[in-house]
Amino acid sequence: MNGMTDNLTLHTDKYQINMMYAHFVQGTDKEKAVFEVYFRKLPFDGGYAVCAGLDRVIQYIQNLHFGEEEIAYLRTQEENYREDFLTTLREFRFRGDLQAIPEGTLVFPNVPLVRVVGTIFEAQLVETAILNFVNYQTLIATKASRIKQVAPHEVLLEFGTRRAQEADAAIWGARAAYVAGFHATSNLRAGMLFGIPTRGTHAHAWVQAHDTEEEAFRAYAEALPEQVTLLVDTYDTLRSGVPNAIKTARLLASRGKRMNAIRLDSGDLAYLSQQARRMLDEAGFPEVKIVASNDLDENIIEGLKAQGAKIDVWGVGTQLITAADQPALGGVYKLVARENNGEFIPVIKISGNPEKVSNPGFKAAYRIISKKTGKAEADYLALQQEEDIQRGERIKLFDPVHPYIFKFIENYEAVPLLATIFTAGELVYERPSLDEIRAYHAEQIRIFWPQYLRKLNPEGYRVNLSAALWKLKMDLIHAHTIM
Amino acid sequence: MNGMTDNLTLHTDKYQINMMYAHFVQGTDKEKAVFEVYFRKLPFDGGYAVCAGLDRVIQYIQNLHFGEEEIAYLRTQEENYREDFLTTLREFRFRGDLQAIPEGTLVFPNVPLVRVVGTIFEAQLVETAILNFVNYQTLIATKASRIKQVAPHEVLLEFGTRRAQEADAAIWGARAAYVAGFHATSNLRAGMLFGIPTRGTHAHAWVQAHDTEEEAFRAYAEALPEQVTLLVDTYDTLRSGVPNAIKTARLLASRGKRMNAIRLDSGDLAYLSQQARRMLDEAGFPEVKIVASNDLDENIIEGLKAQGAKIDVWGVGTQLITAADQPALGGVYKLVARENNGEFIPVIKISGNPEKVSNPGFKAAYRIISKKTGKAEADYLALQQEEDIQRGERIKLFDPVHPYIFKFIENYEAVPLLATIFTAGELVYERPSLDEIRAYHAEQIRIFWPQYLRKLNPEGYRVNLSAALWKLKMDLIHAHTIM
Repeated sequence: MNGMTDNLTLHTDKYQINMMYAHFVQGTDKEKAVFEVYFRKLPFDGGYAVCAGLDRVIQYIQNLHFGEEEIAYLRTQEENYREDFLTTLREFRFRGDLQAIPEGTLVFPNVPLVRVVGTIFEAQLVETAILNFVNYQTLIATKASRIKQVAPHEVLLEFGTRRAQEADAAIWGARAAYVAGFHATSNLRAGMLFGIPTRGTHAHAWVQAHDTEEEAFRAYAEALPEQVTLLVDTYDTLRSGVPNAIKTARLLASRGKRMNAIRLDSGDLAYLSQQARRMLDEAGFPEVKIVASNDLDENIIEGLKAQGAKIDVWGVGTQLITAADQPALGGVYKLVARENNGEFIPVIKISGNPEKVSNPGFKAAYRIISKKTGKAEADYLALQQEEDIQRGERIKLFDPVHPYIFKFIENYEAVPLLATIFTAGELVYERPSLDEIRAYHAEQIRIFWPQYLRKLNPEGYRVNLSAALWKLKMDLIHAHTIM
Repeated sequence: MNGMTDNLTLHTDKYQINMMYAHFVQGTDKEKAVFEVYFRKLPFDGGYAVCAGLDRVIQYIQNLHFGEEEIAYLRTQEENYREDFLTTLREFRFRGDLQAIPEGTLVFPNVPLVRVVGTIFEAQLVETAILNFVNYQTLIATKASRIKQVAPHEVLLEFGTRRAQEADAAIWGARAAYVAGFHATSNLRAGMLFGIPTRGTHAHAWVQAHDTEEEAFRAYAEALPEQVTLLVDTYDTLRSGVPNAIKTARLLASRGKRMNAIRLDSGDLAYLSQQARRMLDEAGFPEVKIVASNDLDENIIEGLKAQGAKIDVWGVGTQLITAADQPALGGVYKLVARENNGEFIPVIKISGNPEKVSNPGFKAAYRIISKKTGKAEADYLALQQEEDIQRGERIKLFDPVHPYIFKFIENYEAVPLLATIFTAGELVYERPSLDEIRAYHAEQIRIFWPQYLRKLNPEGYRVNLSAALWKLKMDLIHAHTIM
């Protein structure tokens, strides 16, 4: 980062270091703990989310170390940490286990997206950064997937860098959008780092830098004859921009080249695209595409399509890259079990709000796929040792908040959701390529009934607890209430 | 960034490189151009914004260069750039001029925040990154300043990293919040990189990692006796958390130490803080502070204060770091003049929406300060060569959209808003320290009447054009309309 440290080890909240210190002083820093990352509520009032951020988490974990700069900084803090604590930090490496749901998977509330099993020391350190990465990237992949749902057959371009919340958001957001089915980004650094295709045309400034629009278009077409997309709204879209673009298309045609597209960036995109389409068709250029941009999101795109807009390519910026209608996913990182005399005992976080009570214990998470339809029926959280689900026996699905809502299911496949990423600090996961993740996401979409995927008022997909897990949760709630 | 390139030179939209290429092919790449960064509308329906991002821009400009990785990447693009273009890029350095409004200044619509005067080649390259940095940091500084306005006497902590839009947003957002008057951040990397004070206590996990809350509090107080802030809502705030915190305060008192604070993180913060305050006071701990967090913003804080909440320290997370109610500032970068035969000629961007028509030409921007009151009366945009304003003569202020609204002003000081940052690629600006910026911002706030600063329905601060600039704008609009 331009001369600044790229070490993300102190990309954490101070209270993590303070808790690590307190555990160190207390002698409990090597006790094991199990933490889960999950969110409680789907973003955008939608029916699903798209998991993303794992690759960033992997890079982060692999590079975790306290360098001299970090140690020197911590020494300046008014907490006045003991020197043997700082020495321990200097030797620190992440040696824990980490399981996670692969990027591109459709995910739902209360399902663990990431699980960290490690010493309380290492598990506290990584909380903040993991949440930061997974919250943002999952949010943007979800937003992009919603846009993809309303424009499944068009080309989708991510154009948001100038409005992104700083540089990392621009590139990781571009990557998340690509996972969810976008086709390209305008950000060249994202293209270089992640192999995302990039696209770009020209700005109003190109037209303004010439004496006339016609001259600007011709000059651009001569410089980049294979990639001509002309922005037609600098002065007057239908009276100047489109006619000048048609002249340029004729010029290119006379040289055996084809113009690629025109771009509309303001005004009534429904009306302008219909008129421009008609003008291009009448001039003999039905193959010239129409690109539209200007504060688009899934609602505006759906509305424009309903109004018969003739748009082949959507350039989506601000609304996507900031997830403007809900710019944060509320993912949390909660302790679910801790070691006591060599055994994991489940722990719970109570809350006056029933949805906020955590699901205790070291859990397994499965996706129940019907063998008859091939479709996902529910996600199922169970204790690790439960065997009925692993053997494919008939199980009872019931709602954890309203347990009288239940159904039985058999003839299913129970697909484990969590993959093993790190074992004792070693990366054991074979990182898929970005295109593999994108293809896997497209497959994921196909195993869900459309009622879970629709933009407005989707059906709620079930996330159910096993009977044993539910009993454990109730027992722990009562134990704490008595206290 | 964990092994990834930290070179931000390709942190740009592809169309910038394509326009640079087209200018190169056309032979116009060395022609000079003048671009301005400005926004058209204040965020959050507020009365002002707080400029931030310049220091990031300076670092970015100083480090701009195409390395071998960037050149190799560009060579793979389907645009098939000519090799002599890539050679030119390899030798590229920013050699232009850059003026900008210093960080911490209160800023208003249509006033240039940054001006780039350089070859069209270099001026196009830097557009995207400058907008990315200035848009986000100005947005967050503005949001933080709004929060500061409703809690001017309390301690304000930035707690947003886990919900920030990736890592850069967390640290640059923490910095912007500090500029606007926040006192500390939880992000240690932001503390280390920028010298922002950091603060942190403990999480629910610390309590859950112990058999009882009382034991957890005691152990924490023993490990960090100088910095004891106890989170009291893990099980039951008033029946368990606060009584256990009071026991800990007694223990500390018996050792000659003082407990710092308790923290409330859920429930009705007005009621709980009043009850907790009473319990602490009755137990003889009136000096123990109450920290509150949980999805706070300026409206919630104002409401809690109106209800008599007894809160001394506000921890603000998601709503601040994402500017949740408006997560993007719509700052733009527009060509206002270009070189033609060695002279700058003004250019304009027309739009059907009168607010979107750009203000043409190479302009000066002044803040008009009344010599009688010491308060800011208006910002004034003029052509560089206008002398009446520089001599302090009587000037006419009139609204550029509704020119019949006007007033005359005399006995003023016209303070130039733009500072010279780079001259011919050399940094000539003495970068102020972060604490100097923060102090300057506090001074800035004092020169504005409170009606411009209030949260709801503020009075609109005037940004006026000189008569000569207005005439130029009208002439250019008519020239293009005839075409």
